[in-house]
Amino acid sequence: MERVAQRIDLPRSNQEEYLRLHRSVWPEVEATLTRAGIRNYSIFLADEMLFAYFEIDSATSFAHASATIAQDPKTREWWKLTDPLQRRVEGTPDNEQWFRLQEIWHLD
Amino acid sequence: MERVAQRIDLPRSNQEEYLRLHRSVWPEVEATLTRAGIRNYSIFLADEMLFAYFEIDSATSFAHASATIAQDPKTREWWKLTDPLQRRVEGTPDNEQWFRLQEIWHLD
Repeated sequence: MERVAQRIDLPRSNQEEYLRLHRSVWPEVEATLTRAGIRNYSIFLADEMLFAYFEIDSATSFAHASATIAQDPKTREWWKLTDPLQRRVEGTPDNEQWFRLQEIWHLD
Repeated sequence: MERVAQRIDLPRSNQEEYLRLHRSVWPEVEATLTRAGIRNYSIFLADEMLFAYFEIDSATSFAHASATIAQDPKTREWWKLTDPLQRRVEGTPDNEQWFRLQEIWHLD
């Protein structure tokens, strides 16, 4: 089972709006994540940083799930609201929004 | 079920030693975490930051699990090796080592 942690910056001036959106994430966006095989997905805030943690269903992969999600029109609409609020981290690949972290230890 | 995300800094000069220690975390330290009710614990690295994610068995709480872990002599020995490698984040409570993040959204 693949575990993914990612981070991105969230300037303080955008936090109220970002939190407001996340109090009622569109049901279609959540359904797409589930359909793509994303499980146990949490987003956390600290200071001006967002951290995401999620798991990938063992029947699929991060790359495949990402491709499935990116094809969903409703999700692309959602990203038009959320992406401008975020500030991408230096070193994030051009085709990705969030910066992926390296897992250094795990205990079940 | 309580989910916990935490962060702390790890200066680049200390990363080799920190990663070496985490390639073989002492079995007693892992057993204590499990005994305290900590589940699905991962530590991730990005740049000079560590990010931890874990879950608390629903029979206990973060506060209770933390107290159980802090009483274990072997874990306190382990911390003597790992704490000096880390750099605590500004705003972390005096009695804690890692800074706890705020969960802003979750999808099972």
